[in-house]
Amino acid sequence: MAQAKNITPRAKDFSEWYTDVIDHAQLADYSPVRGAMVIRPNGYRIWELMQRALDDMLRATGHRNAYFPLFIPMSFLAKEAEHVEGFAKEVAVVTHTRLRATGKQGKDAIAVDPTSALEEPLVVRPTSETIIYAMYAKWIQSYRDLPLLLNQWANIVRWELRTRPFLRTTEFLWQEGHTAHVDEADAEREARLILGIYRRFNEEWLAMPVLTGLKTESEKFAGALRTYAIEALMQDNKAIQAGTSHNLGQNFAKAFNVQYQTAAGGLEYVWSTSWGVSTRLIGGLIMTHSDDNGLVAPPRLAPVQVAIVPIWKTDEEKTQVSGVGSRVKTDLEQAGLRVELDLRDTMKPGAKYFEWEAMGVPVRLEIGPRDLASGQVVLARRTGGKASVPLQNVTSSVTTALDEIQTALLDAARERREKNSIRGATKAQFIEFIKGPGGFAYGGFCGRPSCEAEIKQQTNATIRVLPDPEFRSKEVPRNCMWCGAPSIAEAVWAQAY
Amino acid sequence: MAQAKNITPRAKDFSEWYTDVIDHAQLADYSPVRGAMVIRPNGYRIWELMQRALDDMLRATGHRNAYFPLFIPMSFLAKEAEHVEGFAKEVAVVTHTRLRATGKQGKDAIAVDPTSALEEPLVVRPTSETIIYAMYAKWIQSYRDLPLLLNQWANIVRWELRTRPFLRTTEFLWQEGHTAHVDEADAEREARLILGIYRRFNEEWLAMPVLTGLKTESEKFAGALRTYAIEALMQDNKAIQAGTSHNLGQNFAKAFNVQYQTAAGGLEYVWSTSWGVSTRLIGGLIMTHSDDNGLVAPPRLAPVQVAIVPIWKTDEEKTQVSGVGSRVKTDLEQAGLRVELDLRDTMKPGAKYFEWEAMGVPVRLEIGPRDLASGQVVLARRTGGKASVPLQNVTSSVTTALDEIQTALLDAARERREKNSIRGATKAQFIEFIKGPGGFAYGGFCGRPSCEAEIKQQTNATIRVLPDPEFRSKEVPRNCMWCGAPSIAEAVWAQAY
Repeated sequence: MAQAKNITPRAKDFSEWYTDVIDHAQLADYSPVRGAMVIRPNGYRIWELMQRALDDMLRATGHRNAYFPLFIPMSFLAKEAEHVEGFAKEVAVVTHTRLRATGKQGKDAIAVDPTSALEEPLVVRPTSETIIYAMYAKWIQSYRDLPLLLNQWANIVRWELRTRPFLRTTEFLWQEGHTAHVDEADAEREARLILGIYRRFNEEWLAMPVLTGLKTESEKFAGALRTYAIEALMQDNKAIQAGTSHNLGQNFAKAFNVQYQTAAGGLEYVWSTSWGVSTRLIGGLIMTHSDDNGLVAPPRLAPVQVAIVPIWKTDEEKTQVSGVGSRVKTDLEQAGLRVELDLRDTMKPGAKYFEWEAMGVPVRLEIGPRDLASGQVVLARRTGGKASVPLQNVTSSVTTALDEIQTALLDAARERREKNSIRGATKAQFIEFIKGPGGFAYGGFCGRPSCEAEIKQQTNATIRVLPDPEFRSKEVPRNCMWCGAPSIAEAVWAQAY
Repeated sequence: MAQAKNITPRAKDFSEWYTDVIDHAQLADYSPVRGAMVIRPNGYRIWELMQRALDDMLRATGHRNAYFPLFIPMSFLAKEAEHVEGFAKEVAVVTHTRLRATGKQGKDAIAVDPTSALEEPLVVRPTSETIIYAMYAKWIQSYRDLPLLLNQWANIVRWELRTRPFLRTTEFLWQEGHTAHVDEADAEREARLILGIYRRFNEEWLAMPVLTGLKTESEKFAGALRTYAIEALMQDNKAIQAGTSHNLGQNFAKAFNVQYQTAAGGLEYVWSTSWGVSTRLIGGLIMTHSDDNGLVAPPRLAPVQVAIVPIWKTDEEKTQVSGVGSRVKTDLEQAGLRVELDLRDTMKPGAKYFEWEAMGVPVRLEIGPRDLASGQVVLARRTGGKASVPLQNVTSSVTTALDEIQTALLDAARERREKNSIRGATKAQFIEFIKGPGGFAYGGFCGRPSCEAEIKQQTNATIRVLPDPEFRSKEVPRNCMWCGAPSIAEAVWAQAY
């Protein structure tokens, strides 16, 4: 399990550090398919725990899960003009349905059978609006069928050129919600509701604080009226777009002719939304909390929450500490915790500690004969700190520690984000900030795409969001931070993943 | 929600009946992509409940979930000779990664960009052995890494020509387990363990009794040493293969060079297994239990377990019965049940009953003013029977009813299967049975593929399994039911989906 290569320190090379953390915690691995990764059990467990939590929130707000086809007829994509433009350059296209033997040896033994060409090529879904609206046209007849609130958990393919595990891969997993409503107000309410759920989910489960707000025209989803997003700041002071929620207006309804009979008897196009978060969140989780010793997993999403490491020298001691370890494990599991008891006798305790730390396990219990003699065990926190706690109340000590760690991670991340945010900077200060330490830069924005483009070109920073009121500066900016023209809204800039 | 067309009776046209049931219960719908279906919320909920139950069983036996890429390099498929032969004629092949605008209008506005051809085409996974063994070769070094017990929940594509919702679709959802072991005995133990889990899962959750046993050479998985299967008998007396578990021997290990260092220091290929069940199970569930009124869902997998239908004439009565209905709903939900309270005032109670029946809801509670006056409600079972039960203990009446229905469904299905099985038939009787009522025919088998092929050709019946001891006839057959040569094993024949 232990890796040969040490984890590169963040200060030395953040990007190396990131992949080292993934490698040591066995979260993912490169696959033989360019840009696609394998999500290993430790990484997939985090995703499953995320799914469970978010799915419960979506269900509680009336959403239901369904499953739509992986393949989309090519012509469907073309029905919404902005949409096809946004995705045409990054779709995997299925053109044939059979292979045939060539009679050659090895790698060339089979080839695509040219007689199996599809009449219309199929696109592997880069997102599912088009296939879903084709079905909604069939299902939605009347205002009584609305709102229609569906969600799907699925794999998605976008043929990206530069990929990084979790952050940007040719295939990724996500949920995509697709809802249809009677009017614009109800669609808008839904888009904002989901943005709030995403925020709560990220803060309460990933311990990852996010800014919420509106995307500018140039950053919105291809085919949307408005895109809202949650944005988080990583330890290298780059932003990550952690989720988006789109008010699609009537764009897709018109493209796919999704009409309904109103209560008054008229015929109207539905108003719709779509929204999603993906396995990219795992990348955000890693870069928010982890350190030079490896992964730091927030307790609520940690695949293993408690690692019990018994310590022994003699066989007699082994019997004793293993027995206690096993009882503690049972107790903790009965309290609903995810626990591993490390009885490997091929490794010394120190090496085990090292390994469990790299795996991100929030709490480690060390059980040695001396501790037991005084009725205690040692509780070590992944985030620092070690203390003896009474064996008798160990479950309550552990759950308290886990709760405290969960809260402390969110607080620390929020504090770090605020320390790395500047407000009301001049253009020169902004340039220095973005090129130097980086972070979230708040400032006035004139609203002109040309200004936005110039900033991006010169600093590689983009507007992450026009933040919601809660995040805005006390002093309303009067002028565009860049060009000095009157500001139409405050914006938050950062370099982004 | 109500459909215009009535459900075709089973006796009239079983196949029509099947699709009508799916339609009325809103389980699935046809998609614009040939052979691919949309799984609607009611159908997907059944799948989620199945996933939860089976996943728990797999986790409890030490299996962990992971996620492997959707795409497999074409050459990987060719590495195992039988495997490629088994799948070459039904794979979707990705050959390009971009679309381009053509300047034309409408359907022809975009086309595949010929400059985006992949160097090596990618196959959309028809099963994942090849991509997984490529990773196992990297992960497995020593006997300490074994057994490796992974499972994945994923979508699969097989380009089938004739499709039917749930039973055979170009895309389907499944779980596929892939395990690696130190020796043949351990792989065999695993393959049999999973077969037992599948059986238990089908019987305890789907209430679908299954035969277990070995597949013959001609029916085994492409690349396996041995294939075990569970087989169920549908109401039209056709069999459904509900799950398979393969002992792959060292076939894939050799094709992908998956070797490990033994405890003694030698080098050895791993022994492996793979196994899966899919959304096809939903088709099995439907055809096992449902009737001419629509879906009958086994309580443990029913998306809605209890439908509460208040009955009123006056507004005053509506207030009263709705209030009680709402309290009952809360009570039942607190007991962990999935409940709907039907307060629609656009439908009469009878129409509601009809609809909830078509949806397969196991228990309906009718709450009317007269019942309430005597402190009672009416509990109606989807499987027949209606009784007044005291309002005070309604939760316990409902849970008892649900348990009884679950048990009764399994018993009834087993009884039906046994009534439609014959043992020790002569060739003539066998032919008459298969062409007539159909069902499971037990008889001696000489073991010759030629005999098997002849039977299939003349009767369309195949050997579903060489049954495990528990299912075998008391009298061991001496001769092949077909050719009269000495029998090497008892076999079970049936026509199959």
